[in-house]
Amino acid sequence: MTPLDMLGLSIPLIQAPMAGVSTPAMAAAVSNAGALGSIAVGAIDAPAARDMIAAVRARTDRPFNVNLFAHAPATPRPALEARWLATLEPLFGQFSAAPPTSLREIYRSFAADDAMLAMLAETRPAVVSLHFGLPEAWRIATLKAAGCILFASVTSLAEAHAANAAGVDMLVAQGFEAGGHRGMFDPTAPDDRLGTFALTRLLVERSDLPVIAAGGIMDGRGVRAALDLGAIAAQLGTAFIGCPESSADADYRAALFSPAAAHTVMTRVISGRPARCLPNRFVQWGVETTQTPPDYPIAYDAGKALNQLARSHGEGGYGAQWAGQGAPFARALPAAELVARIESEMAVL
Amino acid sequence: MTPLDMLGLSIPLIQAPMAGVSTPAMAAAVSNAGALGSIAVGAIDAPAARDMIAAVRARTDRPFNVNLFAHAPATPRPALEARWLATLEPLFGQFSAAPPTSLREIYRSFAADDAMLAMLAETRPAVVSLHFGLPEAWRIATLKAAGCILFASVTSLAEAHAANAAGVDMLVAQGFEAGGHRGMFDPTAPDDRLGTFALTRLLVERSDLPVIAAGGIMDGRGVRAALDLGAIAAQLGTAFIGCPESSADADYRAALFSPAAAHTVMTRVISGRPARCLPNRFVQWGVETTQTPPDYPIAYDAGKALNQLARSHGEGGYGAQWAGQGAPFARALPAAELVARIESEMAVL
Repeated sequence: MTPLDMLGLSIPLIQAPMAGVSTPAMAAAVSNAGALGSIAVGAIDAPAARDMIAAVRARTDRPFNVNLFAHAPATPRPALEARWLATLEPLFGQFSAAPPTSLREIYRSFAADDAMLAMLAETRPAVVSLHFGLPEAWRIATLKAAGCILFASVTSLAEAHAANAAGVDMLVAQGFEAGGHRGMFDPTAPDDRLGTFALTRLLVERSDLPVIAAGGIMDGRGVRAALDLGAIAAQLGTAFIGCPESSADADYRAALFSPAAAHTVMTRVISGRPARCLPNRFVQWGVETTQTPPDYPIAYDAGKALNQLARSHGEGGYGAQWAGQGAPFARALPAAELVARIESEMAVL
Repeated sequence: MTPLDMLGLSIPLIQAPMAGVSTPAMAAAVSNAGALGSIAVGAIDAPAARDMIAAVRARTDRPFNVNLFAHAPATPRPALEARWLATLEPLFGQFSAAPPTSLREIYRSFAADDAMLAMLAETRPAVVSLHFGLPEAWRIATLKAAGCILFASVTSLAEAHAANAAGVDMLVAQGFEAGGHRGMFDPTAPDDRLGTFALTRLLVERSDLPVIAAGGIMDGRGVRAALDLGAIAAQLGTAFIGCPESSADADYRAALFSPAAAHTVMTRVISGRPARCLPNRFVQWGVETTQTPPDYPIAYDAGKALNQLARSHGEGGYGAQWAGQGAPFARALPAAELVARIESEMAVL
């Protein structure tokens, strides 16, 4: 019996946590449909996360997943940050504004968030998933003692071994195709950019943990392929962005359902960490930029300010419009219907 | 009946053509085992290609594939080439030698090789596959009139549409994971770097041609996954490099079966075109190099000279040791046994 069996899913499908996109309504709809729904609390604090968990529980009795960012805390580098802000000046300037004069670390890492840990130990979600790294052993032990099943996103075999050693229960094998932030523990280390095919096989054969395949999977055929590769489930994020339960805004949805969806780009300019995004104005600018952004999430402070400014001028092309390489297959279906559709696609092969 | 059915394969598996690695003995062994063997003639002229085809036919009556490079002819740029040679000086210098004083286009593109076309029209291999682009319509018509089934490697939907319009019969969907030269028609155009998962689904759903999935596939589970994605077959190259029938040299095999195999790199420095290679000395040097290499295959002239020099000093780390992201799963089995092993792996799932 794998930890996933313990969750009693009727379909080996996980709706990926997506900060700013997934919602309690989405997670509950997915879990009620027999898959595993997820919320992401990496961008909010413990009280807000507690509310979000309660909002899911108001809609479902089924298990769901709470996702956290466990990045190494950012290193402030004032000179680098000043250069970055100077580099962004023309982008702010087109809206007759100046960049902020300083930047701050806008998200507290779960690796250093005692209040979040205490809240999770009390509320005991069925699954807690970790992105960007692993917190200290005592924090993991606290979650396990609370009965939480632990997932960790990994992009390499070395990260898989680290997750296993830390006591994680299951691996999310995040292929290079995946949308949003690449979960590599150290964003300054060389990245082998392993695709979902190769990474899934590698982790299935060479790690000792069950593997959930993620990246470029959008439909029942993709889920079946993931299972054939030896994964016990597939995690789909981009597939759910277009659902009515998503909090993606109109510009994001329009970009997702445009021809641009075929041309996602891995970029660091929005947040400071590599993330796969629809090719909007900010991303396109980033392709030409040689300046190194500040650490995540310090750079994100600037990116969010720029997006807010642009939006106030009616320009939606500076947002974090994350999407994976499967984006051309996004569907604007209610989440429960999407799960049912994927289930039926798996059956007809 | 797809064109692949016409080939009467007993397993939906194609051994990828690999110039310098695949051999007539490999192709024949694979075809005799019920898959489709391939030879690559892009680096040799028509008389040598005729001999290679004859060498396959001496070993099998089964269909096989002859692969050609159909790149746009290189643009000589003497200033760029001189800068590149200057950049390479330290590499040659470590062996107390100087780079060549000039470079030439060492391979004639099939797009401009009338003798090769005439030889193929006469020898009529069952399958002709195209890499790097599409020759003129009359050349394609000549091959089709000779009864050849035509494959073309593509890395995007736009290339797939071009191949379809040109009269190609089947697409090889080459994911970013794939080893060796990336088949993009225009190596200077933006590359979406689509993984095998996403590209295969895209071409299956949005092109009108049968799709062969390639990139990161090493075993029966991978072939099954490719079929689940809607491909009619899988093409495996790296899986065959370690076979005794391969002409990979001892250094290449040693690198393939070393821990370095987990860290392949897409590099332009060896040949002038992006190609995925084991992380040897030349590739590692390339990671740090900002200088643009000359066009393919002009840069390859320098790369081959450097490799030859290095080898004469007992250093094997400057060769074109192409491999895909699945390299950690290479097996040193005879080709026929590898095909049988993959077939049995497909069945036990």
